[in-house]
Amino acid sequence: MALVSIVMGSDSDMPVMKKAAQVLEDFGVEYEARIISAHREPDVFFNYAKEAEARGVKVIIAGAGMAAHLPGMCAALFPLPVIGIPMHTKSLGGRDSLYSIVQMPPGMPVATVGIDGAKNAGLLAVRMLAIGDPALLAALKEFADRQKAEVEAKDERLQETGCGAY
Amino acid sequence: MALVSIVMGSDSDMPVMKKAAQVLEDFGVEYEARIISAHREPDVFFNYAKEAEARGVKVIIAGAGMAAHLPGMCAALFPLPVIGIPMHTKSLGGRDSLYSIVQMPPGMPVATVGIDGAKNAGLLAVRMLAIGDPALLAALKEFADRQKAEVEAKDERLQETGCGAY
Amino acid sequence: MALVSIVMGSDSDMPVMKKAAQVLEDFGVEYEARIISAHREPDVFFNYAKEAEARGVKVIIAGAGMAAHLPGMCAALFPLPVIGIPMHTKSLGGRDSLYSIVQMPPGMPVATVGIDGAKNAGLLAVRMLAIGDPALLAALKEFADRQKAEVEAKDERLQETGCGAY
Amino acid sequence: MALVSIVMGSDSDMPVMKKAAQVLEDFGVEYEARIISAHREPDVFFNYAKEAEARGVKVIIAGAGMAAHLPGMCAALFPLPVIGIPMHTKSLGGRDSLYSIVQMPPGMPVATVGIDGAKNAGLLAVRMLAIGDPALLAALKEFADRQKAEVEAKDERLQETGCGAY
Amino acid sequence: MALVSIVMGSDSDMPVMKKAAQVLEDFGVEYEARIISAHREPDVFFNYAKEAEARGVKVIIAGAGMAAHLPGMCAALFPLPVIGIPMHTKSLGGRDSLYSIVQMPPGMPVATVGIDGAKNAGLLAVRMLAIGDPALLAALKEFADRQKAEVEAKDERLQETGCGAY
Amino acid sequence: MALVSIVMGSDSDMPVMKKAAQVLEDFGVEYEARIISAHREPDVFFNYAKEAEARGVKVIIAGAGMAAHLPGMCAALFPLPVIGIPMHTKSLGGRDSLYSIVQMPPGMPVATVGIDGAKNAGLLAVRMLAIGDPALLAALKEFADRQKAEVEAKDERLQETGCGAY
Amino acid sequence: MALVSIVMGSDSDMPVMKKAAQVLEDFGVEYEARIISAHREPDVFFNYAKEAEARGVKVIIAGAGMAAHLPGMCAALFPLPVIGIPMHTKSLGGRDSLYSIVQMPPGMPVATVGIDGAKNAGLLAVRMLAIGDPALLAALKEFADRQKAEVEAKDERLQETGCGAY
Amino acid sequence: MALVSIVMGSDSDMPVMKKAAQVLEDFGVEYEARIISAHREPDVFFNYAKEAEARGVKVIIAGAGMAAHLPGMCAALFPLPVIGIPMHTKSLGGRDSLYSIVQMPPGMPVATVGIDGAKNAGLLAVRMLAIGDPALLAALKEFADRQKAEVEAKDERLQETGCGAY
Repeated sequence: MALVSIVMGSDSDMPVMKKAAQVLEDFGVEYEARIISAHREPDVFFNYAKEAEARGVKVIIAGAGMAAHLPGMCAALFPLPVIGIPMHTKSLGGRDSLYSIVQMPPGMPVATVGIDGAKNAGLLAVRMLAIGDPALLAALKEFADRQKAEVEAKDERLQETGCGAY
Repeated sequence: MALVSIVMGSDSDMPVMKKAAQVLEDFGVEYEARIISAHREPDVFFNYAKEAEARGVKVIIAGAGMAAHLPGMCAALFPLPVIGIPMHTKSLGGRDSLYSIVQMPPGMPVATVGIDGAKNAGLLAVRMLAIGDPALLAALKEFADRQKAEVEAKDERLQETGCGAY
Repeated sequence: MALVSIVMGSDSDMPVMKKAAQVLEDFGVEYEARIISAHREPDVFFNYAKEAEARGVKVIIAGAGMAAHLPGMCAALFPLPVIGIPMHTKSLGGRDSLYSIVQMPPGMPVATVGIDGAKNAGLLAVRMLAIGDPALLAALKEFADRQKAEVEAKDERLQETGCGAY
Repeated sequence: MALVSIVMGSDSDMPVMKKAAQVLEDFGVEYEARIISAHREPDVFFNYAKEAEARGVKVIIAGAGMAAHLPGMCAALFPLPVIGIPMHTKSLGGRDSLYSIVQMPPGMPVATVGIDGAKNAGLLAVRMLAIGDPALLAALKEFADRQKAEVEAKDERLQETGCGAY
Repeated sequence: MALVSIVMGSDSDMPVMKKAAQVLEDFGVEYEARIISAHREPDVFFNYAKEAEARGVKVIIAGAGMAAHLPGMCAALFPLPVIGIPMHTKSLGGRDSLYSIVQMPPGMPVATVGIDGAKNAGLLAVRMLAIGDPALLAALKEFADRQKAEVEAKDERLQETGCGAY
Repeated sequence: MALVSIVMGSDSDMPVMKKAAQVLEDFGVEYEARIISAHREPDVFFNYAKEAEARGVKVIIAGAGMAAHLPGMCAALFPLPVIGIPMHTKSLGGRDSLYSIVQMPPGMPVATVGIDGAKNAGLLAVRMLAIGDPALLAALKEFADRQKAEVEAKDERLQETGCGAY
Repeated sequence: MALVSIVMGSDSDMPVMKKAAQVLEDFGVEYEARIISAHREPDVFFNYAKEAEARGVKVIIAGAGMAAHLPGMCAALFPLPVIGIPMHTKSLGGRDSLYSIVQMPPGMPVATVGIDGAKNAGLLAVRMLAIGDPALLAALKEFADRQKAEVEAKDERLQETGCGAY
Repeated sequence: MALVSIVMGSDSDMPVMKKAAQVLEDFGVEYEARIISAHREPDVFFNYAKEAEARGVKVIIAGAGMAAHLPGMCAALFPLPVIGIPMHTKSLGGRDSLYSIVQMPPGMPVATVGIDGAKNAGLLAVRMLAIGDPALLAALKEFADRQKAEVEAKDERLQETGCGAY
């Protein structure tokens, strides 16, 4: 049973959205991935978002670009946390996506991550689930240790090579 | 029977949206005005937008601010023209509303007017209806003549007073 | 007789503007396409815009970039709906085009679509004409069904492949 | 024992941050509120953020303005979800706060809400806690019903008064 | 006979535009001031701009706000220099006006000054006329001397009072 | 004797600045071109700008990028018109250059053209010189006719090919 | 003998610039304050900036707004550190000032602080002087302690009152 | 013993940060370079920043991108000058980095240079150290002379070739 549902309106968002899925796989979190458009198939979308909680979904991760309505409309229909990922756009650099997702009116929150920030969206979902799951919390701490070790390794290499030869 | 349906998600938008209603009254176009939130009552909104065409509505004018999803979701459910009015906002000046309305993905158009541009939204609806209504077209031409006369009167006054005393 | 007139100020806009023409062809709407510059040949432009309605044009689609004056000047001379398409620009990403088109003063509406949004401009013109044309309205509904089917097909494929192999 | 810790770097943020506290009170969620500056007292801040999880805190809500480092530094030290609230600013309207909070590098997520979006921050914390708390989930659904009823009441009033007299 | 023609599309721009007129009066340059809208009375505008050179006008100063087309359309019809003044706007701070005026396509220059920069527009017109008028050039040099003296007087006062009591 | 002095702070601006020189050559206007940095050789720059008028220069065209001080400092030292060209920049698209040039304080005008708008800068200089030079004015009108003919030729081609084959 | 020279181009910047002076007074650092305009009196400015080092000035703090050239021109003429303060502006919020100061070309650094950040400019000058002045360094550490104590006092008050009554 | 410490949070910043190191090498200033992440290893970072002054570091140069917290957190822990370098970013061009670094709250200064401005960061550090080091000051003056000579050489070449052949 999927605890996290990843949803995007178009498969053009897949190269970014995959990174959220990868994080969930790395942490062993059950998830589903869907391509559903709030604009092109509003009735399919409505059913999806309304029934997600009953199906056992605890967190929705929704990615969208331009006039990005998908995350906000998820938040209107799904009572648990919705994480929104604004897609980079050619003309406005993703400001359009970011503002369309983060500037939700009072009463309707979307947990927004940075532009193309799918990895952070996956991690945020894991952090949310870890509130009630000590094993996930432990895994997050190990992940933090690995992130730290990676930076330390780079610094060690720099101390050997100096800036010029790095 | 309303030909134009004016819809807003919150009554805080009313001082701006009234200007669209006033234009429709001035041109004698039947309209309705509704406060319906796509976020707070998505099922009410869905019914409203899906049934509007069958009720005889030819144009929807939707105003919204911040992460402004109302016009775009109307365009997803209503097959005839949707006019979107981005509301001015304190922090981003209405860029958030503008981008959320105008940057619709291909396949789902919203006819966007300027920030707080409700008067133009009303006039755009009249222009759309005038495609098939010669009387409205004639009224639009009279309106253009009045606009011209107003500017000419101001210029005449300026020629009398000069800049300093205008 | 052309119902829609597509106009652009420079042939550098053609790769974008073609998409509006394609939509009109797909829906079987009669149209003309013109390269006319409001800046470089203002008298030609004036005649074009003033006489368009008498020639039977019901909607003008005008594309322009940078200090984009063409759509707004069309709206000043043509009494029926004008749809403006802001072109992407290298330095400002199309914000210059967008603001020059959408921020029209009260009394002079331009139905603005997104940056490079020519496909939506074509669809918006079809929606406007469909107000008085049941066959076009039916065609729009079929178009919506096809859009829905395309997304559903993508989602089906995703359910087979999963994110990683999509 | 506080489940949610509200933290701000300066008491000038209190008028906004109070709204998050109010939401938590309305939902009966135990919380604490702290004024701690990551810049002015980094050691106090470090201890606060490092020990929060051990003290039983499940979610941190951090508000900050300008070069807003507090939410991101919380996310570096606290393994569970951090919600960031960007404060409105005079010169940049809160874009500085928003970018400083939402554009976190990969590996370090902050759940960002809109500018001055403290009410949504409170609601997002409640949604996170509701993942494992059926009573909170039920309360969220009641809250959604009340939000819906409020909009419906406004629409009813509008149908009585019309736009002009609303 | 007016050497400089000041034109604005609306009398709401008068408080700013007056400053350009004042500069011309201070330098004894003959000027006219007109309220003419390129949008609301395009035929009046066309005649004005086309005949200006024949009437002896050497420089046009055009002020406009929002989708500011007046300066650019003047440049299309009048062969001598056009100075554009972008008006401050509530929502976009005048960026809309600035981009609509300064981002003219190649071949059609507008000499743009800063937002609400009417004093500089007046001075720029004087500088242009001074190319062929030694008396005006001398007056510009005196003006520069007075500007210098004013700053020196302020600095002297500061040396007496110090920062605190200034 | 050069009537127009083209100045840039770095030879990296040459590919853009050449277009201004080309316009002056096309119109037979005597000009000089200089690489002088207000930042790297302020004394050289001061002498250049202070002595330009005495050497017979009537207009300075100054191009600069990023924190673009060259045009404004020219305007401080040279009493006749200064035309500023903001260079495109990688990170801010030329907004930095544009704001640094156009937003001059009252009393110190720079005639600003669009980002990378060197062709328009050249044309603006010609328009300024044409105030007192009927031959240049005639040449400008011929240039306008050629610009018009070019657009008309493109439109003719389009009428033959249609959009698809253009 | 002044170690720090505070300079501004206009006395309209004084209310902001005073805060830098106050910091220097609080730390007992000798300073001078000048109103000198790089645009209105370039020769006075040149002498000021060129002779500052010989007069014993170690750091210049320069504040400017709009097309803010003063800090950058100081950096061109004075070989020691220049601190730039971008002033808030009505139309662009100070982005124009900020970009004009911070985006200096390679080879010519300005140490830029935030918009209206005069207090930080003063502190930055003190930090620079403290490199070679142990007493100043000690004073900076005491200042940091006081800043910390102030936040701690606010947090203590909050623990007594709670959010609602703070 | 390193007088300047260059620190970056990720080795992806190295191509830019190298330029700061090169400047320090050119001026013979002792420096160290470190890869330390305030987010991924906050305890390592804290120790680094707290102990830097005791180790003899006089200036920290910190580069960071996106929600760039490294420079500001250095300023919180290190009492001497911190120079911040905002990295260019794909989506926001480095505005996110710039605002996150320059908009520090009062009391906590960061000497910010332009986006990707590592060369200027190096030079700014040299200028700071030159306050108490006459040899460095002399070297800065020689550097300025070389910069001047380079521009003069380019101008000489231009006088020989003209614009077209440059």
